[in-house]
Amino acid sequence: MLTMSRWEPNTRERLERAAVALFAEHGYDATTVAGIADRAGLTKSTFFRHFADKREVLFGGQDWLAESFAEAIRSAPPGASTTECLAAVLATAAPLFTPERQDLAVQRQLAIGANSDLRERQLLKRAMLTSAVTDALLDRGADGTTARLAAEMGILAFGTGFALWAEPGNQRPYLEIAHEALADLRACAARLGTDTPG
Amino acid sequence: MLTMSRWEPNTRERLERAAVALFAEHGYDATTVAGIADRAGLTKSTFFRHFADKREVLFGGQDWLAESFAEAIRSAPPGASTTECLAAVLATAAPLFTPERQDLAVQRQLAIGANSDLRERQLLKRAMLTSAVTDALLDRGADGTTARLAAEMGILAFGTGFALWAEPGNQRPYLEIAHEALADLRACAARLGTDTPG
Repeated sequence: MLTMSRWEPNTRERLERAAVALFAEHGYDATTVAGIADRAGLTKSTFFRHFADKREVLFGGQDWLAESFAEAIRSAPPGASTTECLAAVLATAAPLFTPERQDLAVQRQLAIGANSDLRERQLLKRAMLTSAVTDALLDRGADGTTARLAAEMGILAFGTGFALWAEPGNQRPYLEIAHEALADLRACAARLGTDTPG
Repeated sequence: MLTMSRWEPNTRERLERAAVALFAEHGYDATTVAGIADRAGLTKSTFFRHFADKREVLFGGQDWLAESFAEAIRSAPPGASTTECLAAVLATAAPLFTPERQDLAVQRQLAIGANSDLRERQLLKRAMLTSAVTDALLDRGADGTTARLAAEMGILAFGTGFALWAEPGNQRPYLEIAHEALADLRACAARLGTDTPG
């Protein structure tokens, strides 16, 4: 194995791996940026070129993801159904969730699950992704109710797809799991749309 | 009109009214607890018997609401459909949203809308209410997909019902609007469950 240089292109991933390893060993609160940089064999200033703080190691992809989800909907063919738009949203995240990064995702989920502030932050991230999808569907001309409900379904499918993909030992690809989750949600929506009203 | 005594039962509402009036006049960030107590003709220590801080004036009802939603589902008849459970959730909030409190709700919404931190806090509140409803539906034996999707629909109906009820000039009762929102969401769910898959 070659010695890692501080200029190699995967600096960001090295910092992510160092961070989640330290979160697992010492807890999120006890981990410092200096400790993360040190574990990665990098300097604090290198850390700060990639992340504003240690929380951003876990949530830094949010703006990119929100914008990608919106772009997936904007670039769907004019005649695409709402479900086809949601499938495009799910597909846009697939390049992030490769087999090589699955173990990193497992550790990320463990870190978030162990800390109530991070769990809150995760809920907020989901809510913000939902808003981005809602707005993009509204821009396509969906009515308010459809946009809001479809966005919730899309982000539920995304969240379920990601959570099951990031379970220890999982071997199935993210996109297969996410599409299955969306199909389950649609079957469920059809039932909830027709069960006995209150 | 009788002079208000500091021991009258509506102390909490006086503090709420003073707070939202000050938020409207000076902005949320510039408003202090001392200023709120002063405007209400009460002391800071009286304020702190009702609220931990000024943010809790806007969000203090969250835990009560989450518990009430869960209890509404727990106490629904054994044979109640999921939709009937959601209707019970909507009804449980109705005593809070009386005509006398509508103007307070209008001001509350304006305060939240004007501040990005408060808008985030509102998203988080919705996510937490959704979690409470999800857990209560799971406890009733719903499968995970149904519990999550139905909870999103219930909280969307609640949020829409509240937001439209709290619009300036609205005269319709909250529960009528919320039930209509749930019916719209169910019709929409039926469509999303059967449109062209991606």
